[in-house]
Amino acid sequence: MSRSLNIAVIPGDGIGQEVVAQGLKVLSAVLPQDVKVETTPYDLGAQRWHRTGETLPDADLDALKGHDAILLGAIGDPSVPSGVLERGLLLKLRFAFDHYINLRPSKLFPNTATPLAGQPEIDFVVVREGTEGPYTGNGGSLRTGTPAEVATEVSVNTAYGVERVVRDAFERAAARPRKKLTLVHKNNVLVYAGHLWKNTFDRVAAEYPQVTTDYLHVDAATIFFVTQPERFDVIVTDNLFGDILTDLAAAVTGGIGLAASGNINPTGAFPSMFEPVHGSAPDIAGTGKADPTATILSVALLLRHLGFEAEAARIEEAVSADLAERDGTFRTTDEIGDALAVRVAS
Amino acid sequence: MSRSLNIAVIPGDGIGQEVVAQGLKVLSAVLPQDVKVETTPYDLGAQRWHRTGETLPDADLDALKGHDAILLGAIGDPSVPSGVLERGLLLKLRFAFDHYINLRPSKLFPNTATPLAGQPEIDFVVVREGTEGPYTGNGGSLRTGTPAEVATEVSVNTAYGVERVVRDAFERAAARPRKKLTLVHKNNVLVYAGHLWKNTFDRVAAEYPQVTTDYLHVDAATIFFVTQPERFDVIVTDNLFGDILTDLAAAVTGGIGLAASGNINPTGAFPSMFEPVHGSAPDIAGTGKADPTATILSVALLLRHLGFEAEAARIEEAVSADLAERDGTFRTTDEIGDALAVRVAS
Ligand SMILES: CC(C)[C@H](C(=O)O)[C@@H](O)C(=O)O
Ligand SMILES: CC(C)[C@H](C(=O)O)[C@@H](O)C(=O)O
Repeated sequence: MSRSLNIAVIPGDGIGQEVVAQGLKVLSAVLPQDVKVETTPYDLGAQRWHRTGETLPDADLDALKGHDAILLGAIGDPSVPSGVLERGLLLKLRFAFDHYINLRPSKLFPNTATPLAGQPEIDFVVVREGTEGPYTGNGGSLRTGTPAEVATEVSVNTAYGVERVVRDAFERAAARPRKKLTLVHKNNVLVYAGHLWKNTFDRVAAEYPQVTTDYLHVDAATIFFVTQPERFDVIVTDNLFGDILTDLAAAVTGGIGLAASGNINPTGAFPSMFEPVHGSAPDIAGTGKADPTATILSVALLLRHLGFEAEAARIEEAVSADLAERDGTFRTTDEIGDALAVRVAS
Repeated sequence: MSRSLNIAVIPGDGIGQEVVAQGLKVLSAVLPQDVKVETTPYDLGAQRWHRTGETLPDADLDALKGHDAILLGAIGDPSVPSGVLERGLLLKLRFAFDHYINLRPSKLFPNTATPLAGQPEIDFVVVREGTEGPYTGNGGSLRTGTPAEVATEVSVNTAYGVERVVRDAFERAAARPRKKLTLVHKNNVLVYAGHLWKNTFDRVAAEYPQVTTDYLHVDAATIFFVTQPERFDVIVTDNLFGDILTDLAAAVTGGIGLAASGNINPTGAFPSMFEPVHGSAPDIAGTGKADPTATILSVALLLRHLGFEAEAARIEEAVSADLAERDGTFRTTDEIGDALAVRVAS
């Protein structure tokens, strides 16, 4: 019986194209011969918008639905007004495909430079809510551009949305050796949303007596990220706090060149989408300086999501070994991709 | 002519009492003989709430109005439900007295441990908006406690509120040697508030050609806080982003034991309020372990605000010298206060 994977690829803007090429290279290299990979590129991002004014038309959205998963490079270009591609393409995908788990592992690999002194042990995963909070686009502006302007942003939080991500996080924590889950919010100020999160968390916690839990305000959490990152195992948090914390987490674990992420719909109703945490970095596009490792680690998350656990682990081990043996010499995007493709194939 | 300072003191909870005592000690020591300091304690915080159910009654609020400034220790206790004292006392003061400048300097003093490798030069100030954003208390919860609950938090941003804090930040940047101002927001997602902030910032920037400006998304800003903190001079940002960033800033500059803040109403219509960034730390209350330096540096901000620039600078120099000569031996709250009082007096 031969299996096949049907992957949609959105290279996007800037370095997106380059890093995605390496991700696909490693994907082909790691899979057994009998698994056929079909990839379909989607022309979405700044160029498409300049050409047609479209960000994500219904036809593309419908076509994307037919794939097993989506691999995305990076979205965004200075030539496009801020928010157009983010809201009209990236967040539209996350919301349309109900990616309520935004999964972002943070691991400090051996031989990897961290800005922190003393090379702490870091190995945690942030389960960021992906479909609610201040990301819903609710809000508006009245008397725009006048001295009397009022602009609002509404964070929307539902019991439905909070409970499903909290449950997912408890499952992930229960499956890890340390079995620890930290809720991060700001419930001393954002009392309505904060109480919904905290009450839901406490209620679900009762079903997982084996999981140790605690709570941190988001401001305090940033302190621990730099003073005691080893205290974290699994973190569950809202969409905006998760956005902020995972960039900080990437920074302390060697930079966004290594940070992978998955936008996951665990029900399988829609394809999940995997992307590096970094942006499109137009300043280095085409120079061969982009590190494709974050995309390659995102491919590992993609494989794990589709049931290829052994292959996912092989990629992660290859990255770990590759970083450990690194000697500081500059390697191009291509060279890193090649090195990892060779490692996973052997 | 003899002058007098009329200071309201809110010790608050936990270590608040202890650190405020040291702040007042240094305040008396640093002022010239002819300046009379009158202090009036206000019994506000967890104990008052337990006793009377009150957080900040109108009578106290009215009385506080009569002072030149307020010195606050810390608010909060685990015996009080989250949000009660924060919203009912601390934020109520900031909002009632229109403290639209929440000023938080971040400086890495000599001989001070930072979690960052390589002892970078850090000397920036965050101008955090203090009266708007997600801190307004707008929002609510529908069908609370049921599986159909919806909880919202509304970030309110006005041209009036944004422009005044942006202008203040430009003034501060123009007065500093490096003359650099960074706006931090998340205008690729929070497009309504983000555009108001960015447009206001760009418009006011035209009046300050001598100030170099840039913009960072809040997630990217956290990366630079740990990888390149020396790039920052003055930062202006919204209430919630400012809360998160200043805890991180405190962490990288030696911890919240050293981080001072001022809640300032520059018009003088209401008294400004000065407080350490840290919380009430009930776990170490009464043990003599609390570092009063953050409170003492907040007293320096208080003095500067009231026109005692030389005295403010003397406190800051004393702290710098004290930290530089520190040998790692444990010193109690009292001992640190005594050492600084001696230094500023001589
Ligand atoms: C580009 C932006 C919309 C996005 C986000 O805020 O989620 C990015 O920062 C991320 O973390 O994936
Ligand atoms: C205690 C809390 C309400 C407060 C805030 O969020 O502003 C604190 O974190 C601070 O930074 O002063």
